[in-house]
Amino acid sequence: MLLIKVGGGKAINWNGIAQDIHELMSTEKIIVIHGASVQRDEIAARLSVSIKKVISPSGVSSVYTDEEALDVFLMAYAGLVNKRVVACLIRHGISAIGLCGVDGQLWQAKSKKEILIREGGKTKLLRDNLTGRVEKINTELIQILLEHGYLPVICAPAISFENEIVNTDNDWAAAIMAEQLKLKKLVYLFEAPGLLENKDQPLSLVRRIGRLRIEDYLEFAKERMKKKMLSAKRAIEGGAETIYFGDGRIENPVKNALEGKGTIIC
Amino acid sequence: MLLIKVGGGKAINWNGIAQDIHELMSTEKIIVIHGASVQRDEIAARLSVSIKKVISPSGVSSVYTDEEALDVFLMAYAGLVNKRVVACLIRHGISAIGLCGVDGQLWQAKSKKEILIREGGKTKLLRDNLTGRVEKINTELIQILLEHGYLPVICAPAISFENEIVNTDNDWAAAIMAEQLKLKKLVYLFEAPGLLENKDQPLSLVRRIGRLRIEDYLEFAKERMKKKMLSAKRAIEGGAETIYFGDGRIENPVKNALEGKGTIIC
Repeated sequence: MLLIKVGGGKAINWNGIAQDIHELMSTEKIIVIHGASVQRDEIAARLSVSIKKVISPSGVSSVYTDEEALDVFLMAYAGLVNKRVVACLIRHGISAIGLCGVDGQLWQAKSKKEILIREGGKTKLLRDNLTGRVEKINTELIQILLEHGYLPVICAPAISFENEIVNTDNDWAAAIMAEQLKLKKLVYLFEAPGLLENKDQPLSLVRRIGRLRIEDYLEFAKERMKKKMLSAKRAIEGGAETIYFGDGRIENPVKNALEGKGTIIC
Repeated sequence: MLLIKVGGGKAINWNGIAQDIHELMSTEKIIVIHGASVQRDEIAARLSVSIKKVISPSGVSSVYTDEEALDVFLMAYAGLVNKRVVACLIRHGISAIGLCGVDGQLWQAKSKKEILIREGGKTKLLRDNLTGRVEKINTELIQILLEHGYLPVICAPAISFENEIVNTDNDWAAAIMAEQLKLKKLVYLFEAPGLLENKDQPLSLVRRIGRLRIEDYLEFAKERMKKKMLSAKRAIEGGAETIYFGDGRIENPVKNALEGKGTIIC
């Protein structure tokens, strides 16, 4: 079973991903998780809703989420992008079903109402934050869909243990899904060739990272890439054997990643 | 098995509907279909997207849908409202799963690229319309979810036979679902006490309509209510035995409708 996490960039080649998935599905079951951060930001701007991006004291970026921002999340992730991706996969002959983490309590998250952020050199406490960290997966629902030949296409938001809708980190959720579904292989596709030692230098691509050396490479990973590295680390700790980072913009993005054209963590 | 179609008005008492469903689920399987027209219009206005409402030569209202309008549909129906409804049902102890007609080709529709409309006393032809009329239901997907204790929460848009996303009439889709799932009972909840002979007079409520007399009552049904009447007619032709129209704004909306407090067609 293969989990493919696709970033929310606009240059992602979804037709190429769909072609690869269609081919791979003849031999293995597949789950897709996708982002939609670019569309979220666009919709927020058009609706004049401010999406407050914050940085944790350890340097990880996230979004402070109030009710209005959560509405924009639902529109962009669960509405616009999820269904456009599902339709694209269906056009390639795949029985895709779109779900967000709320559906059937697929992604249950621990609320993080209060978060510490770093702003202007100081550490601050933000309250009433509608986000959470995914801890529990409804694996039964995924198994039911896979057994009947459906491909689950999943995105944020999640649902808290108190049954409130909460924004969540898709990358982290991917790692928890991998652990609880006992997956061995994960592919992360995004708008870069893989992990770069210098993010402005495509030639600085890191080809291979030993599973015990992930920490050493965290320093090269900035912002979004940092989340992917932390997710990969969590997935490995949870039992995954190989993580493939690859370019989502090219021809055959999934196959190229699996052939090691990006970064492999194993 | 009971299908409950809930209108897209803001005064709908979703907590009351969820309470009723939770109680009824102990004895029968339930499917929910919901609208989101009010939220769609609000989001469209905030995004400055024009939603062109048109009237067919036979007097039925619908929406002319281009790509931009379809994006708004996806945001409002499949994103914002669907997931808020699912979370509400989950808070009442129901394993709800939100799907739109695109997911798993749940609602397959015949494209209506060209439509005739009535405007300024004249009949006109509109082209490039992204709407369709639902003809085929993925009943297997619904059965799988119901068998495993999940409650499907379904909304527009649908997917065409050419695998394009198309806007569709929820009420009509409800009738086709009823036929293909061989349902005997449907409940329609909206922001009125039932079918009124005079829509401004709550006391003009029609209590009972014989199945052969639906046509006679069509004249009382204006705009949205007309669609519900046509849907009820189609459901009866498809094998349904009893249709309950009821007020979605009151306490226990589903139970009251089933007890005949609104309009019964049988």
